[in-house]
Amino acid sequence: MPEIAEAVRVVLVDTRNPLNIGAVARAMANFGFPALRVVNPYELAFREARSAVDAAPVLEAAEVFGSVAAAVADCTLVVGTTAAGGRALEHPLHRLEYSARAIRREAARAGTVALLFGSEKFGLSNDDLSHCHFLTRIETLHQEHSMNLGQAVAVSLYELVRRPAAARARPEPARPATAAENEQVTLRLLEALRRSGYVNPITEGSTEEKVRRLVRRMNLSAHDAPVVLGMLRQILWKIGGA
Amino acid sequence: MPEIAEAVRVVLVDTRNPLNIGAVARAMANFGFPALRVVNPYELAFREARSAVDAAPVLEAAEVFGSVAAAVADCTLVVGTTAAGGRALEHPLHRLEYSARAIRREAARAGTVALLFGSEKFGLSNDDLSHCHFLTRIETLHQEHSMNLGQAVAVSLYELVRRPAAARARPEPARPATAAENEQVTLRLLEALRRSGYVNPITEGSTEEKVRRLVRRMNLSAHDAPVVLGMLRQILWKIGGA
Repeated sequence: MPEIAEAVRVVLVDTRNPLNIGAVARAMANFGFPALRVVNPYELAFREARSAVDAAPVLEAAEVFGSVAAAVADCTLVVGTTAAGGRALEHPLHRLEYSARAIRREAARAGTVALLFGSEKFGLSNDDLSHCHFLTRIETLHQEHSMNLGQAVAVSLYELVRRPAAARARPEPARPATAAENEQVTLRLLEALRRSGYVNPITEGSTEEKVRRLVRRMNLSAHDAPVVLGMLRQILWKIGGA
Repeated sequence: MPEIAEAVRVVLVDTRNPLNIGAVARAMANFGFPALRVVNPYELAFREARSAVDAAPVLEAAEVFGSVAAAVADCTLVVGTTAAGGRALEHPLHRLEYSARAIRREAARAGTVALLFGSEKFGLSNDDLSHCHFLTRIETLHQEHSMNLGQAVAVSLYELVRRPAAARARPEPARPATAAENEQVTLRLLEALRRSGYVNPITEGSTEEKVRRLVRRMNLSAHDAPVVLGMLRQILWKIGGA
């Protein structure tokens, strides 16, 4: 388990809908975050949330608290999430991309981080927010339209575990066909075109060059070149008239 | 609207649950992606999906197609999403971080990109996948446990619009208090401590230095220093005995 997933406590405050708690738990299970805390859930039966595919272990281990203060007491960094509409915020407000760095840094020095999400309808109250070191928001088109709770948690956890290096790492390229294989494809294709009457004898030289360049632009892989050769062989057999 | 949001068509193939289509539309509305296409939805009444807070315009504009080929016909890049379990894939498979770069590049040269999501239960079929240039997956803890459809779409669109620079950009720091303000806080705090009997006359010099350093470590902002001064003034008044 990555250290970031061990370090983070997802804290749901006043969540009304147990299905949403289930959706949150599922996202946590997907990204490997085990620690869920719920403050004043509207139904204590949330552990049975039906939508929680794969999320049963997270829900079973979830801890219930009576206040935000109690839920974050052992944490060294407390981060509140907000849709940040017009409300004047007295806290620093960072985009998720920036906040994730701060959270990873805290995890790297063995800190414990609470990530707070408010109720579906009202978000976090000013009282909840006063427990936070800073606030974070997911940049959306209209900040006044909040995100679905399960989606907001999924996006937040994804940002915590995403690997910037993966964006740059070239994937292993398919092994390309050799020049000899490309030339075999070229010659067979030309032969099929000749026998089909596609090639005008007067311009045959330039047609050959065009076909050769066309085949190179296809960038056939070592895997695909023999397949294409086999297709052309079969077509030549069907056309006949060698 | 960012060009990436204009360029992308979110294509849902064989989606069973209209609520999931609604959740997808909500994530699209959040991140500003207008173009939803659905292939063979199980219920044509999906446009009324109840969970679709803020998503009505996306749902109303959604286009319905009878096949994947028709849904992606005008696209210059077709990307399939997969949980990529054990199934042998004949396509290049990239992490989302990498795929997003390729999609942004295609959008930047005025291409149109289809991003395909399969049914909740079975994902995309091999036939669906054969229409794709490459496949992408969201890295999760257990690739055999798929993500919730709405959450997968939210994470994918977030990756497309996230700003790497935002992770590095230092936020505007709060204007710090001046040295004079810090010193005023220090002197008033010391006075309160003296009058309260906290300061031992024998070690008074070292206590003063300790308090001065403590106040500096608090990094009071220009906004907070007068507030703290006001508190100390009031406490000194209550203690009396100047």
